[in-house]
Amino acid sequence: MLHDPNRVYVFDTTLRDGEQVPGCQLTTPEKIEIAKELEALGVDIIEAGFPISSPGDFQSVVELSKAVSEPIICALTRANKGDIDAAVAALKFAKRPRIHTGIGSSDMHIKHKFNSTREDILARGVEAVKYAKQFVEDIEFYAEDAGRADIHFLAQMVEAVIAAGATVVNIPDTNGYCLPDQYGSKIKFLKENVKNIDQAIISVHCHNDLGLATANSIAGLQNGARQIEGTINGIGERAGNTSVEEVVMILKTHPILGLHTHINTKNFYEISRMVSSQMRMPVQPNKAIVGSNAFAHSSGIHQDGFLKNRENYEIIRPEDVGFPSASIVLTARSGRHALKFHLERLGFNLSKEELGEAYHRFLTLADSKMDINDEDLLVMMSGALVKNL
Amino acid sequence: MLHDPNRVYVFDTTLRDGEQVPGCQLTTPEKIEIAKELEALGVDIIEAGFPISSPGDFQSVVELSKAVSEPIICALTRANKGDIDAAVAALKFAKRPRIHTGIGSSDMHIKHKFNSTREDILARGVEAVKYAKQFVEDIEFYAEDAGRADIHFLAQMVEAVIAAGATVVNIPDTNGYCLPDQYGSKIKFLKENVKNIDQAIISVHCHNDLGLATANSIAGLQNGARQIEGTINGIGERAGNTSVEEVVMILKTHPILGLHTHINTKNFYEISRMVSSQMRMPVQPNKAIVGSNAFAHSSGIHQDGFLKNRENYEIIRPEDVGFPSASIVLTARSGRHALKFHLERLGFNLSKEELGEAYHRFLTLADSKMDINDEDLLVMMSGALVKNL
Repeated sequence: MLHDPNRVYVFDTTLRDGEQVPGCQLTTPEKIEIAKELEALGVDIIEAGFPISSPGDFQSVVELSKAVSEPIICALTRANKGDIDAAVAALKFAKRPRIHTGIGSSDMHIKHKFNSTREDILARGVEAVKYAKQFVEDIEFYAEDAGRADIHFLAQMVEAVIAAGATVVNIPDTNGYCLPDQYGSKIKFLKENVKNIDQAIISVHCHNDLGLATANSIAGLQNGARQIEGTINGIGERAGNTSVEEVVMILKTHPILGLHTHINTKNFYEISRMVSSQMRMPVQPNKAIVGSNAFAHSSGIHQDGFLKNRENYEIIRPEDVGFPSASIVLTARSGRHALKFHLERLGFNLSKEELGEAYHRFLTLADSKMDINDEDLLVMMSGALVKNL
Repeated sequence: MLHDPNRVYVFDTTLRDGEQVPGCQLTTPEKIEIAKELEALGVDIIEAGFPISSPGDFQSVVELSKAVSEPIICALTRANKGDIDAAVAALKFAKRPRIHTGIGSSDMHIKHKFNSTREDILARGVEAVKYAKQFVEDIEFYAEDAGRADIHFLAQMVEAVIAAGATVVNIPDTNGYCLPDQYGSKIKFLKENVKNIDQAIISVHCHNDLGLATANSIAGLQNGARQIEGTINGIGERAGNTSVEEVVMILKTHPILGLHTHINTKNFYEISRMVSSQMRMPVQPNKAIVGSNAFAHSSGIHQDGFLKNRENYEIIRPEDVGFPSASIVLTARSGRHALKFHLERLGFNLSKEELGEAYHRFLTLADSKMDINDEDLLVMMSGALVKNL
């Protein structure tokens, strides 16, 4: 089924799992704008909405289907005909439609959410796949709360839905509960024990409740999954979903994994800012890959090393993710080397003694002012010149 | 050396690695306030500063040493006498002082940063430990950029500094480069191949450049490390350090790991807000454990399951980290069950038919307004009553 066994498909759910977050709701035109950016980013699948959930969501899936050409457009459903009928209708204009249906797989969900039995739930899952398959060829099945499911039942469910026509099987860690080795083992078990597993792509869908979504996704890929689901900036329910930008950059930074995506990584910074602004969800400065400080070096030890050789402290080049440029920020923790760098940039070429004197004045200034900018340096140096003359 | 082999020591560097971030600089009184909160949180070690780096930092270490009683107070140095002398002087009033000294261990750092050789660097590291040991009993050694170091040289360095008197050996992934299995393997190798390793505690110090700091720290603990270094909210250089709150809550949520800390987890929310506000570093809403949305359930499927049984979607009780309360937020993605919950809270007890009618009105409203609050519901219901009467 896969032409290139080392290619990882990127399934973006910013507009579905991300958009359902309080305060993040978008209008259809806003969703179209983001979808076009996702297309430019090179994602393989855009999850466009959950059509049965509201008239607005239905309409968005219709309009996104018209607006986007390259990526697969996917619509979410529960495992019932009403949901699937709505998704089929909403996907009418999609060039490459996918239906994403599924049901709970953990005993916790089966008993307490569905008040049902494993047998009944499995039958409902299979039925949903068969029903959807009449209308759409590409069917992804999600085994909700797979992170806490009994592994033998999960394997049975996966085998049954693949036999029923599922092209992708999504193994979500719905509650962000798993440790990376636990999640990786689940994927490994499915890969080794489900007879027809090679007829479908295994997808990883992780949540970040314990801060492990990215690591769990990577563990899944290391054990045979070939689709990752996530969002831009890691937005999503509660502590959010896997950050697409983190997983993609890990694959790029670690060629030893032997995996690659078709993502244009230089677009990350721009789409991160667009999603943050349209969804009113701030990105914290220390967010990996796209935070405003992600490439800022400030301590003296680090700045000195950085100026000697970028690779001392930089494993990703900021330009690879479209970041404006790595910045050396001057604070009370900066060293002589960083001060010299900035002073030279401003046209001051000092002797060792002069630099020592300037550095002393700089430290006094930096203890009373948090960030030292060019103007501060010019004032400081003009004072020094007057004093020296 | 360890009384309880399953206890994990928490080394907080919010006031050192966190504080050196652009814009995060604090006054000494602000640092004292945070240090007292860290003491109440129950951290084992507070890294209070880098005394040689500036007069302000020196003074902060002096004042924190006076202000805090329980935790060890630690001061950072490079591997030279001047740095160590400053740290010894700054720690004069500490009840339980620790000096944290070290040097680069990767060939990248040895060649390009120090322009030196492995032999020379190792000798300088050993010399620094021996020198510091004359003044302070508790010496932690950091092997900078250990994440990229040759593992055999790293083992040799660790063995030599323990022999010289180091009580803790810190194996930093300075650039946030490692994958969890790689980082875990490094710790395992040291644990199995360094002869005197049981005479010191292995410490993990990870950075989040690829979003893997928490996972790497856990991998280190699973392989024998017993101290984790991190910051509140994961602040720090570039994409930040390991989030203390994430690692601690993972250990608590996964008893299978058999590890525990002495942290009062109910204090996490309050200290997170204090650090964010004093350091002017926003915490994104989808931050694990302490983000404002970390416990907010918004989609209909999730809300329904949550209301049936909290454990369907909640692996940590919000009150365990001092969070005000798990909230059910109403949006266009909410289901009937969530609407019923809120209407009942407001005093409306509706029949099934009435709820169906209210839900229809609610969806129309929710498509045009992003968050539905109590007032919206009251207006909506008063309209319904007027219409129905």
